[in-house]
Amino acid sequence: MRVGLLTGGGDVPGLNAVIRAVVKRGEGEHGHSIVGFRHGWRGLADGDVMPLTRSHIRNVLPTGGTLLGTARYHPHADDGGLDAVRATLEEERIEALICIGGDGTLHAASKVAESGVKIVAVPKTIDNDVWGTDRSIGFDTAVSIATEAVDRIHTTAESHNRVMIVEVMGRHAGWIAATAGIAGGAELVLAPEEPFDIDRVVRFLQHRHRAHASFSIIVVAEGAVPMEGSSMTYETRLGPFGEIVAGAISERLGAEIAARTGFDTRVTILGHVQRGGTPTPADRILGSRMGVAAIDAVSAGESGVMTALRGDDVVLVPLSEIAGKVKQVPAEMLEVARALA
Amino acid sequence: MRVGLLTGGGDVPGLNAVIRAVVKRGEGEHGHSIVGFRHGWRGLADGDVMPLTRSHIRNVLPTGGTLLGTARYHPHADDGGLDAVRATLEEERIEALICIGGDGTLHAASKVAESGVKIVAVPKTIDNDVWGTDRSIGFDTAVSIATEAVDRIHTTAESHNRVMIVEVMGRHAGWIAATAGIAGGAELVLAPEEPFDIDRVVRFLQHRHRAHASFSIIVVAEGAVPMEGSSMTYETRLGPFGEIVAGAISERLGAEIAARTGFDTRVTILGHVQRGGTPTPADRILGSRMGVAAIDAVSAGESGVMTALRGDDVVLVPLSEIAGKVKQVPAEMLEVARALA
Amino acid sequence: MRVGLLTGGGDVPGLNAVIRAVVKRGEGEHGHSIVGFRHGWRGLADGDVMPLTRSHIRNVLPTGGTLLGTARYHPHADDGGLDAVRATLEEERIEALICIGGDGTLHAASKVAESGVKIVAVPKTIDNDVWGTDRSIGFDTAVSIATEAVDRIHTTAESHNRVMIVEVMGRHAGWIAATAGIAGGAELVLAPEEPFDIDRVVRFLQHRHRAHASFSIIVVAEGAVPMEGSSMTYETRLGPFGEIVAGAISERLGAEIAARTGFDTRVTILGHVQRGGTPTPADRILGSRMGVAAIDAVSAGESGVMTALRGDDVVLVPLSEIAGKVKQVPAEMLEVARALA
Amino acid sequence: MRVGLLTGGGDVPGLNAVIRAVVKRGEGEHGHSIVGFRHGWRGLADGDVMPLTRSHIRNVLPTGGTLLGTARYHPHADDGGLDAVRATLEEERIEALICIGGDGTLHAASKVAESGVKIVAVPKTIDNDVWGTDRSIGFDTAVSIATEAVDRIHTTAESHNRVMIVEVMGRHAGWIAATAGIAGGAELVLAPEEPFDIDRVVRFLQHRHRAHASFSIIVVAEGAVPMEGSSMTYETRLGPFGEIVAGAISERLGAEIAARTGFDTRVTILGHVQRGGTPTPADRILGSRMGVAAIDAVSAGESGVMTALRGDDVVLVPLSEIAGKVKQVPAEMLEVARALA
Repeated sequence: MRVGLLTGGGDVPGLNAVIRAVVKRGEGEHGHSIVGFRHGWRGLADGDVMPLTRSHIRNVLPTGGTLLGTARYHPHADDGGLDAVRATLEEERIEALICIGGDGTLHAASKVAESGVKIVAVPKTIDNDVWGTDRSIGFDTAVSIATEAVDRIHTTAESHNRVMIVEVMGRHAGWIAATAGIAGGAELVLAPEEPFDIDRVVRFLQHRHRAHASFSIIVVAEGAVPMEGSSMTYETRLGPFGEIVAGAISERLGAEIAARTGFDTRVTILGHVQRGGTPTPADRILGSRMGVAAIDAVSAGESGVMTALRGDDVVLVPLSEIAGKVKQVPAEMLEVARALA
Repeated sequence: MRVGLLTGGGDVPGLNAVIRAVVKRGEGEHGHSIVGFRHGWRGLADGDVMPLTRSHIRNVLPTGGTLLGTARYHPHADDGGLDAVRATLEEERIEALICIGGDGTLHAASKVAESGVKIVAVPKTIDNDVWGTDRSIGFDTAVSIATEAVDRIHTTAESHNRVMIVEVMGRHAGWIAATAGIAGGAELVLAPEEPFDIDRVVRFLQHRHRAHASFSIIVVAEGAVPMEGSSMTYETRLGPFGEIVAGAISERLGAEIAARTGFDTRVTILGHVQRGGTPTPADRILGSRMGVAAIDAVSAGESGVMTALRGDDVVLVPLSEIAGKVKQVPAEMLEVARALA
Repeated sequence: MRVGLLTGGGDVPGLNAVIRAVVKRGEGEHGHSIVGFRHGWRGLADGDVMPLTRSHIRNVLPTGGTLLGTARYHPHADDGGLDAVRATLEEERIEALICIGGDGTLHAASKVAESGVKIVAVPKTIDNDVWGTDRSIGFDTAVSIATEAVDRIHTTAESHNRVMIVEVMGRHAGWIAATAGIAGGAELVLAPEEPFDIDRVVRFLQHRHRAHASFSIIVVAEGAVPMEGSSMTYETRLGPFGEIVAGAISERLGAEIAARTGFDTRVTILGHVQRGGTPTPADRILGSRMGVAAIDAVSAGESGVMTALRGDDVVLVPLSEIAGKVKQVPAEMLEVARALA
Repeated sequence: MRVGLLTGGGDVPGLNAVIRAVVKRGEGEHGHSIVGFRHGWRGLADGDVMPLTRSHIRNVLPTGGTLLGTARYHPHADDGGLDAVRATLEEERIEALICIGGDGTLHAASKVAESGVKIVAVPKTIDNDVWGTDRSIGFDTAVSIATEAVDRIHTTAESHNRVMIVEVMGRHAGWIAATAGIAGGAELVLAPEEPFDIDRVVRFLQHRHRAHASFSIIVVAEGAVPMEGSSMTYETRLGPFGEIVAGAISERLGAEIAARTGFDTRVTILGHVQRGGTPTPADRILGSRMGVAAIDAVSAGESGVMTALRGDDVVLVPLSEIAGKVKQVPAEMLEVARALA
């Protein structure tokens, strides 16, 4: 059986663990040939292929990025894109496709699946907002990087009198903000799930600094927004790929707090650092398990499904159940962040 | 309300996150007084108390160990132990007790609960073998330490021709062995769940080294044992607290492999290093969430329950459901370890 | 003997190692009383003291920040500042003063020493630009943080086609930029030592991307500047304490490169993250050795000197030899950065 | 010019940085051809060559081990070894040889140099005991690993009443023991430089535990020995390559302390973990600088020299000055370890 493999969307640590698992299990157990497409869906549309054998995956387990490359291209959003994809799949005699990606890739996967191609998806996004799975690949590493930054700022903050704002990723959900906020002991977590009231934020800081504190750390997700009708105006700025511009909310928030409190307010924007480097063991394990589950699913004739972590188990869920949903941070976790401030 | 708090058994990273959460949430939200008992159940039997307020928990979130101390003492295994515990609880007017621990502590907790004391337990063990919860506190950090060791040995192993054996913790279940084996890309994982056949191990190594490899890494759980009736004899050696003696299985296994293959075979025993140091973000978050859940449960009048992670949620499970059960590594995960060798 | 101790300027990892060493050695070997001044020279002027005994320094070795606090205040730059300092020293019967700090503190130290007070200085600055010592405390940790960031960006950069600019600290010297650039394998290092020619930078990038590369990483020190008379205008922006505003050069440079090449250019500003967190072993060792050397020097009647690392040895150098000098990166090291691009 | 390159002795982190620097600088600046010999001197004797070009060194900077492989073989200790080396050099038309290694390799280098071959050596050893250079490649990473282990054991030790012994590498000099002991805050450092008096060790522990402590950490170098004539007998055990058997001294010492004090005494043997994994920035920088210095020296016609770090500078020192000398830990540093216990 010839199985295609691609990684779509922004890259995250743990992708190479999936690729390695698909190749090792696919070759070793099932005797499949694995064909990689370079630069995500773009390579599938353009016919940019590379064979994937054991020699390609030596030593990749602890590495970040993706050996296949990736691109922010979606065939269903491009005129003739789906036709080009089908043509490549036919030409390369691909019987099934495993695609690793986030929102956009999962959406593309269901579109392509509708046209009869066998597809199994593997969820990755440092935002962790894919519905139907406890964890997406890349999230654990991003939390670890963001927490380390909060830890570091914590020690410098203690020596001064200031407000430190740390902006982390999370457009539709505040998973990194909430977890790094809890793990790093931040005073305030601002997440897209709960638009914030700038007046309450300012009162909280003033009260806290009057009472005893000489510093406060605020972790804010890039997708956080002020409450409607509140006294802070803000409009989300989007970049060329529809992504939120790094620093937009945190710099606006910093200016607002500085103006209203007079506190020395500093902003740190983690940005791309969150996407890179050696994956944590948890991301390598999740990637390995999902890679094996994906090729096993393909071999069992499954299609239109996504691998998912549920508790201790890796299971398959229909792509149709996931479409259009965003997994937000549970209220309990946001409450923990608040309780431990 | 006066709430008692203790940490029992061996210490693990993440305990201070629980203590901090219980104190912050207990004082802040519920207005409770938190009373700590030093050195686990021993302090509860002896009346060795310390008040726990916000000033005691400053900066403890990223620290390992337990600020309360711990000890390997179980009141139900000691003559008059349960009476002493009840006496202290009465004298200190403790209305409910939160105890953080593993197997032994959970067992002690159900015994004490039977005598009418309100008890909520929080599971911690780097072995991750507590039934009823996806994760126990300390496991994620231990996996991260063990994986780092396997990563390091991987690079030295590549330059030589040898067999490297890494022994990790895990008496009744091979969670650390399986996960660090997968994450570190080990060639073989030996876990208590599946007694190993030394003849197959030797054949595997010989075949592998004949074919192409110049090294092999074996991750073995301290509780791994050879199959009954196999050609390797081995008797588990126990220490003063009934714990498995570090190095027993790995040194025996190393000698056996060296004798049968003639390969240069080296043993690394991680030991106590796995129990220490800064907790990973995942362990700090789990500890924080479980600490909040425990004090909330106590405040709601719950008793005889344990906090548990189930998927994305923290829930309560009856202690009676857990008793006597060991959560073993799922067969799927052991299969992944095998598939990716 | 009563010995005063303060930490001046911005905080860096490793300060607590010095404090611990001064206290342990001072009490244990010499029988001195150590008196800490809070918030640097400000506390010395204001008489804000705290006794420092063994109980204050428990567990501080691996912690960042400074348990004494710090402030950006210099007595010689403040009307009546030196008088206030002398008054406090007299009132507290301080016979000698150990001050840990960078440029500003070393300058203040020589001013105070001139007025007859016995002073021994210990150099700290993540910029590593103190003359007379191979290393200043905090530098090694900052390099390790900056390198980790370059490593992470390296893996994300590889999957895309872009120019990544990483701004690190270094106002008068590019020590962090050069070392993190070499250690992280950056394509270009821009340091204050050698004003850059934007035309050459652009040509280099264009040539490189035309030839083969899909990404380039530039590490730029905050104090880097374009060559005079070059085609890029830039004026250093200063903050309230005379410090360079974070992001000023890198954002300007990024805009320039994007405009001239059309490449997708992203900027990461490490900022305060470089100043915080657990000190590396090298910084703990340097701090410990210099702390012991400082209190031994004080006990031997030395004054007007600074502890310094020279090769394998810790020695004393006269403050007068250091004044007004900046230790820049050796040309050989900048050449290595260039050669390995 | 054709330049040979080999890595001899045990591998350490940072070797690939040297290889990369030699190739990049050699090709780029000097136009040399670099020829690698596999498995150290063994490959040079056997003619096991691989060309080394830019494509071989992609992404190797942050990796441990050596891409050339290594072996514990010395031509001058093997009958006909030097002749075989000369034959290969002639056959491959090698005009100069760069060899990266420790004691054994430096000795081999001077022997080969005597026979007229141009040789430049680069010092690597995690033991840091090469004379004439402030640092050898690999040492900083080993210290970082050992310190992390002491840090971890520190937190577990605090919760119990025990003596923890950590054995680190260091046969002739206690560099890792002294530095990791200082950085980790150990109570006792035992190094080869000063044979220890077991009676004093036991008295120190007894006094300390009687006074206040519930734990003590001892860092012992593998090459530490009891004082002659003392009440503890011990004979160094050597392995097949003349190396000290891991665990020999620490297990003996642990048994002795346990027997004399009755304290619960545990041993951790770091072993090969110290040799592996990602090199620290300091080791990557040192490796890069020495690699550039070595190929520049070769190009300038130098021979019979070793690259060395002296303060901030990389210089060349004659191999003849180094022969037979061991760089031991300065007394000042051992005193710091003692003072801060």
